[in-house]
Amino acid sequence: MLCSIMQIAVLTFDGFNELDSFVASAILNRMRARGWMAHITAPSATVTSMNGVVVQRQKPLEFAADADAVVIGSGIHTREIAADPAMLARIRLDPARQLIAAQCSGTLLLAKLGLIGALPACTDLTTKPWVVEAGIDVIDAPFVAHGNVATAGGCLASTYLAAWLIARGSGIEDAAAAIRYVAPVGEKQAWTDRAIEVVRPFLATPEPLLESGHN
Amino acid sequence: MLCSIMQIAVLTFDGFNELDSFVASAILNRMRARGWMAHITAPSATVTSMNGVVVQRQKPLEFAADADAVVIGSGIHTREIAADPAMLARIRLDPARQLIAAQCSGTLLLAKLGLIGALPACTDLTTKPWVVEAGIDVIDAPFVAHGNVATAGGCLASTYLAAWLIARGSGIEDAAAAIRYVAPVGEKQAWTDRAIEVVRPFLATPEPLLESGHN
Repeated sequence: MLCSIMQIAVLTFDGFNELDSFVASAILNRMRARGWMAHITAPSATVTSMNGVVVQRQKPLEFAADADAVVIGSGIHTREIAADPAMLARIRLDPARQLIAAQCSGTLLLAKLGLIGALPACTDLTTKPWVVEAGIDVIDAPFVAHGNVATAGGCLASTYLAAWLIARGSGIEDAAAAIRYVAPVGEKQAWTDRAIEVVRPFLATPEPLLESGHN
Repeated sequence: MLCSIMQIAVLTFDGFNELDSFVASAILNRMRARGWMAHITAPSATVTSMNGVVVQRQKPLEFAADADAVVIGSGIHTREIAADPAMLARIRLDPARQLIAAQCSGTLLLAKLGLIGALPACTDLTTKPWVVEAGIDVIDAPFVAHGNVATAGGCLASTYLAAWLIARGSGIEDAAAAIRYVAPVGEKQAWTDRAIEVVRPFLATPEPLLESGHN
């Protein structure tokens, strides 16, 4: 793919799950030395997590339209957000130009944005009934991608989302290096092997991404 | 142990690693329905992560003295903090009464606080030389505990710290349930089995914790 430097929007809403937003962003920021940057991207100046942690956003929601990649995090208010046309209208995504990854209830947002279509997707067990209700075929797997759109289920499957984004944006060696860094001591090879095993089937890209304005 | 409800201080300093603070706190907060609460605990009203994320603290650093359990997170400025007597004096821990867990460079702080002594400890590969310099025997493992003091190495070993704290504070079934919830879909049994395998050898407690003021 043509984006060698990626600016990434990690969409984070009130009630967000810290694991989903921060595991992905922290792993993606392992690529900062290469010019990448993952930004906590939110509709308001501050957002409060499901456990009451108040975080200042790094980018406004509209940044999603300009990012090279977008991660849609999860949270306890996603159903309300997915039912809010004004909020959905602020999230402008283009899978022809961007890598897009949704985590757990983020898959519901992705479905409401019309970006899943008839393809199978992953989500967490709590969100699953709502995603099924939205007409999506939910599979019993941690990760799946179709072209430039990926979904993951289970908070810590965010490691796989991050690995896929790095592998697509830079290469599988960099994805392996990022996972190796964050993995537990004494288990680094096993964690790295597993992450690469999960994402490798989804690295073939039928068409390269269109060149991004950030390159 | 006697603390059935635990108030947990997750010590978080400027330059903190989001994985270390938030993976532990999010998993521990799976026990909120049982009255537990993990709090982002910091020396200043806001702290900025190693990737520029600004977070409002939930408790001041002095809360560590009152907590039932303390998690010492990691970050890029730990060496400076560990060399600052005024900051160390604000961290008052009592392993006779509290469960204490340090993650990655948090192990260096624990050593400077005199809470590791001659026992082997875990830390990440980057911090290892500094911990060794502090006179600590660092082992090639993700997790180790001695009585009420545990250390972990590698960002995502924070899952093991959280599992140990829940197992010690409530029971192994609750620890397994928390890990199962956050694990990737389709891999929940394997992740749960591994976490329990890692922490189980360290669950035997020679003496129960003294009763906490929170019970």
